Amino acid sequence: MRYELYYWPDIQGRGEFVRLALEDAQADYVDVMRRGNGERTKGTRDKMAKLLDGTRVARPSFAPPFLKAGSLLIGQSANILQYLGPRHDLAPKAEAGRLWTHQLQLTVADFVKEIHDTHHPITSRLYYEDQKKEAKRNSKYFREARAPKYWAYFENVIDQSGGPYLLGRKITYADLSIFEIVDGLRFAFPKMTKRLERKHPLMSALHARVAGRENIARYLASKRRIAFNEYDIFRRYRELDG
Amino acid sequence: MRYELYYWPDIQGRGEFVRLALEDAQADYVDVMRRGNGERTKGTRDKMAKLLDGTRVARPSFAPPFLKAGSLLIGQSANILQYLGPRHDLAPKAEAGRLWTHQLQLTVADFVKEIHDTHHPITSRLYYEDQKKEAKRNSKYFREARAPKYWAYFENVIDQSGGPYLLGRKITYADLSIFEIVDGLRFAFPKMTKRLERKHPLMSALHARVAGRENIARYLASKRRIAFNEYDIFRRYRELDG
Repeated sequence: MRYELYYWPDIQGRGEFVRLALEDAQADYVDVMRRGNGERTKGTRDKMAKLLDGTRVARPSFAPPFLKAGSLLIGQSANILQYLGPRHDLAPKAEAGRLWTHQLQLTVADFVKEIHDTHHPITSRLYYEDQKKEAKRNSKYFREARAPKYWAYFENVIDQSGGPYLLGRKITYADLSIFEIVDGLRFAFPKMTKRLERKHPLMSALHARVAGRENIARYLASKRRIAFNEYDIFRRYRELDG
Repeated sequence: MRYELYYWPDIQGRGEFVRLALEDAQADYVDVMRRGNGERTKGTRDKMAKLLDGTRVARPSFAPPFLKAGSLLIGQSANILQYLGPRHDLAPKAEAGRLWTHQLQLTVADFVKEIHDTHHPITSRLYYEDQKKEAKRNSKYFREARAPKYWAYFENVIDQSGGPYLLGRKITYADLSIFEIVDGLRFAFPKMTKRLERKHPLMSALHARVAGRENIARYLASKRRIAFNEYDIFRRYRELDG
């Protein structure tokens, strides 16, 4: 069975957490909207729109990403990862470990939403430029309180498990997501992230270890890895860092 | 086995989604922080703090609510519900149905975060009064775009399943959460919610049906149901409605 991933073709976004798992597992998948080097046709766009249309499919997602796996249509990135994890050796098979991995992933998702809101605290329906003042206020608290709290939380989880990963010696999809968080925040908030990394060596070590995995390294060097850009979750606006 | 729920004792908050499931299932549980009519002792506060302290427990939550179920400590409300659902006949047992129910719950969680952010778009570390201007801007887009989008999404899910619940004839924990959303938005945004309900009868019918379930009706009439208040997720600020 070939998985079909549906997500916006120009950003890493929330789809990237799924892409990293599929790539690490060398799963047989197609990133539908990026097929043919991302040259989009009306047909491709229509296909995604159709699968989001609740009058045409039984279990539509509220938003991308979603994964077609045989007859299943699975939405919400953490939910997709929970489905893929035990199938591709990226999560424990026993219930206690699966729940814990998923709990960590949901905490990653909360962190991602707060990262997004640093540049869009009013609404994602307006441009950044139309909410810049509010973004500056939001970012101050993000840098001083929220990001350090999440970062210390995950650092402690690695520490308590014995490391190098969140659950100890075995990697899970949640580790791939932590890689993405560290990578993204280095890009978006370089000054803040430098301070955090100075204090918390285990998060940086986890990032390096994931980046060095053969399949991930190959993916990151490929054209499949979309570069960070200013339409994405992680954005570099100097005025928000500090 | 008696479950132990840990959550703030003065608000419904994210803990309420779990409380509703435990109450509907008549599960054997104790709401630890509210034990003894919510008269808090230092001992009770210390107990919750200890279970959140990553140097003292192996799998600490980032934040309440969390559930102690035997030797398991489970955090993130959607994750707790996913654990409870199949055990208490509040979710399908087969994987496809479980994933779909959880996907809906994660979409509820996204909606809840956006509801919270209407009054706290800058940071939860400041009072509402210190971000009132930004809250007004945020709420405008919430009322005009986001809430209608979520509402229509869930209405369509009920419609496509044949109703009266999200999955059709069998209730799940996600329906209890939709009840809470409708109940909370009627309180917080009465004008907006009236408009939404006029257009979408299935959401209102689901709310009424859940409210009429014997165990839920008994819970809502009891002292265990905390009243809506201005420290909670759902807050009535006239200037934000319209």
